[in-house]
Amino acid sequence: MSKSNILNNRTKENHCFSSLSKEFVANYHKIFNEVVDEALARIPYLHSIEIKNRIKKMAGYYALVEKPILAELFLIAYEMLEEPNNYNEVKKRQAYTLACVMEMCSCYFLIIDDMEDDSKIRRGKQCWHLLPDAGSSVCNDTCMLRSFIYELLLLNFPQTEGSKIIAYVNQIYFLSAVGQHLDMLTSEKQNYKNFTMDQFKKIAELKTSFPAIHSPIILALILANKDSKEAKQQVHDVCNDIGIFVQIKNDLMDLYSSNESDLKSSTDIQKGKCSWLAVKALEMCNIEQRRIFQDNYGNWDESCVRKIQELYDTLKLQEIYENEKQTQHENLIRKINELPPNAIPSADNYKKLISLMEKFQLA
Amino acid sequence: MSKSNILNNRTKENHCFSSLSKEFVANYHKIFNEVVDEALARIPYLHSIEIKNRIKKMAGYYALVEKPILAELFLIAYEMLEEPNNYNEVKKRQAYTLACVMEMCSCYFLIIDDMEDDSKIRRGKQCWHLLPDAGSSVCNDTCMLRSFIYELLLLNFPQTEGSKIIAYVNQIYFLSAVGQHLDMLTSEKQNYKNFTMDQFKKIAELKTSFPAIHSPIILALILANKDSKEAKQQVHDVCNDIGIFVQIKNDLMDLYSSNESDLKSSTDIQKGKCSWLAVKALEMCNIEQRRIFQDNYGNWDESCVRKIQELYDTLKLQEIYENEKQTQHENLIRKINELPPNAIPSADNYKKLISLMEKFQLA
Repeated sequence: MSKSNILNNRTKENHCFSSLSKEFVANYHKIFNEVVDEALARIPYLHSIEIKNRIKKMAGYYALVEKPILAELFLIAYEMLEEPNNYNEVKKRQAYTLACVMEMCSCYFLIIDDMEDDSKIRRGKQCWHLLPDAGSSVCNDTCMLRSFIYELLLLNFPQTEGSKIIAYVNQIYFLSAVGQHLDMLTSEKQNYKNFTMDQFKKIAELKTSFPAIHSPIILALILANKDSKEAKQQVHDVCNDIGIFVQIKNDLMDLYSSNESDLKSSTDIQKGKCSWLAVKALEMCNIEQRRIFQDNYGNWDESCVRKIQELYDTLKLQEIYENEKQTQHENLIRKINELPPNAIPSADNYKKLISLMEKFQLA
Repeated sequence: MSKSNILNNRTKENHCFSSLSKEFVANYHKIFNEVVDEALARIPYLHSIEIKNRIKKMAGYYALVEKPILAELFLIAYEMLEEPNNYNEVKKRQAYTLACVMEMCSCYFLIIDDMEDDSKIRRGKQCWHLLPDAGSSVCNDTCMLRSFIYELLLLNFPQTEGSKIIAYVNQIYFLSAVGQHLDMLTSEKQNYKNFTMDQFKKIAELKTSFPAIHSPIILALILANKDSKEAKQQVHDVCNDIGIFVQIKNDLMDLYSSNESDLKSSTDIQKGKCSWLAVKALEMCNIEQRRIFQDNYGNWDESCVRKIQELYDTLKLQEIYENEKQTQHENLIRKINELPPNAIPSADNYKKLISLMEKFQLA
C-alpha cells in the first residue's frame, strides 16, 4: 500500500480529532478498499487471486451501496469517548479498520438472512445468494468472509486489545444468529400463542438492538479503553429500547414503504413473521378479526396478504405506532436524564447519539 | 457439571499420561457431551434452551457417529510431544477440549460441503441441510456452531495460548473454505484444461492435507508449547504429500466403494469434480478417449456416468493408484529418514503417526 494513502496521510487536517468521522464518510469507498486490500495482501497463507477478488467483492457487496451508518455511529461515539492525548495515527487507523469491520459484519448477516428468508432484492441489488456464481456456496462464502474479518482484526490490533475486540465481534455473530434462528422458529411454527410482545422484544434485542445499536457504542468504549463492566451495562440499559423501537420501525417500513421502491421486497406477512404489526394486531383484535388473521397470515396468496393489510389498517396500527414512538422517546430521555453525572458515555453524549440515530432514520 | 465427571476425576489411572488418547476414545461420547454441556452452561449471554439444544445436536451430528480419528491423531501426537513434567489435569482437560473442537470443526465443514455439493447421505445419516428443520438455515446454523466453538476455546485456554489456538483454528476455517471454493470453481467451469495435477494437488492440500493431516500435529505442537516456526514448516514438508494421497484415496473410494454401502453417495463424476481419477484419465487418454470424457463427464445421466467408469477401467486407474501408493510411501519414508536428529516431532514419531493414519485407513 502506498505511503501516501489516506490512512497514513499525516496532514494537519488529518490530525484534527473531531474530523475523524467526517473524513471517513467523505472518503468511505477509498478507505474501505484500502483496508480490505491491505489485509488481503498481508495474510501470509492466502495466495489465490480469484479468492482475494471474491472476498473483496463480498465484503463490499452491500457495504458500499449505502451510507456507512454503523461505521459513522461508531466513529462519532469514539470521538466522544477518546481522550485527545491518547489519539494518534495508530488509533485512527484502528478506528477506521473497526468502522469497516462493522460494515462487513453487517454485510455477512445480510447475506445469510437474505438466503434464509429467500429475499430477492436488498439495497437495490440482487441478493448475494441469487448471483449466478453464489447459489449453494453462500455458507462457504460467508465462512471465508468471517475468516477474513478475523485476520483483518488480528493484523490491526495488538494482542490484548485485539482479543477483546475479537471476543466482542464473536458475540455479535453469535447473538445475531441466535436472533435469526428464534425469528425463523417463531414464524415457522405458526403458533400465534407465541406471537407475544415479549417474544418480539427478545428477537428484536438479539437481531437489531445488539448488533446495530449497542455494538457501535461498545466497540467505541473498547477502543477508547473505557469498557468497564458498568459502562457496558449502562449502554445495554439505555440502548435496548432504542433497538426494539428500530425493529418496530423496520417492520412498519417493510409493509408501508416497500411498495414505493424496490430497495427491499416486503414479505413479512407472507412468511408469517413475528413482526410488531402481527403481535400488536393479535393483542388488539376481536374474535372475528383473530379468525381473519389466522386464516390469512403466513400465506403467499395476494388476497390473503391484502386481508391482513386491511386488518392492520382497521386496527389503525400506524397511528398506534406514532403514539408509542412519542411515549418511547419521552421514556428514553427521562432514563438518560437520570444517569449519574459520571456516566460513560455522558447523558449529553447519549442524547447526541440518539439524535444521530434519528437523523439516520434509525430510531 | 458434577465434580465427579471424567474430566475432573483425579484417579491414579487418569494421571497416567500415555493413556490419554485411550481413555478419550473409550469415553468419547461422554467426554464430548460434557465438554459441550459445560461450555453451553458457561457462556454468559446464551439463555435459550432451544438454541442450546440445537447447538449440541449440530456439534455432535456427524462427530458422534464415527470413531474420532482426528481427535485420536491429535491426542497421540500430543502424548509424543508433551514433556511428562508439564502434564497435569489442566493440560488433560485442554487436550480433550481441543480433541472435541477438532471433531466439531470437521462437522462444521461436512455440513457446509454437503449443502454445497447437495449430498444426500453422510456417515449413514441424512445430511444436515436435508433435515426438516434445517434447509435454508444452514448458514445461520453453522454461524452459531462456529461462534460456539470460539467461546469453547476462550473458556478453556488462558489468553496467550488461547489466542494462538484460535488464530490457528481460524486458518483451518479459512483454508478449508478456500479449498472448497476452488474445488467448486474448477468443477463448475468444466474447462478440462484446468484439470491438471497441480490444480488437483492445490485443492487437496487446502481441503484435506491442511485440516485433516497437518492440523492434529500442529495443534499438538501448540499445546505442548513446541510450535516453533521450524517445527511447523517441517510438519508441512512431511505431511503435505500424505494429505494429497488421502485425497486421491477419497476420490477412489467415492467411486469404488460407494456402491457397496450407503454411507456416502458417489457424485464426483456427475458433478464434474476435479478428482484424481479425472485428472489422471485426462493425462493418459488418447484423442478418442478424451472425446468420450468431454462428452460424458459432469452429467447426471446414468449412461454417461457408466461410460466414464468404463474409461477409468480401461485406463486401469486403480492399478496405477496402487503403484503410485507404493512409490509415495517409499518417498515419504525416505523424507522422514532424512530429518535431522533433533526434529520435532522426531523421525520415529512421524513413522508412528503415519502407521496410525494407515490403521485409520486415512493414508
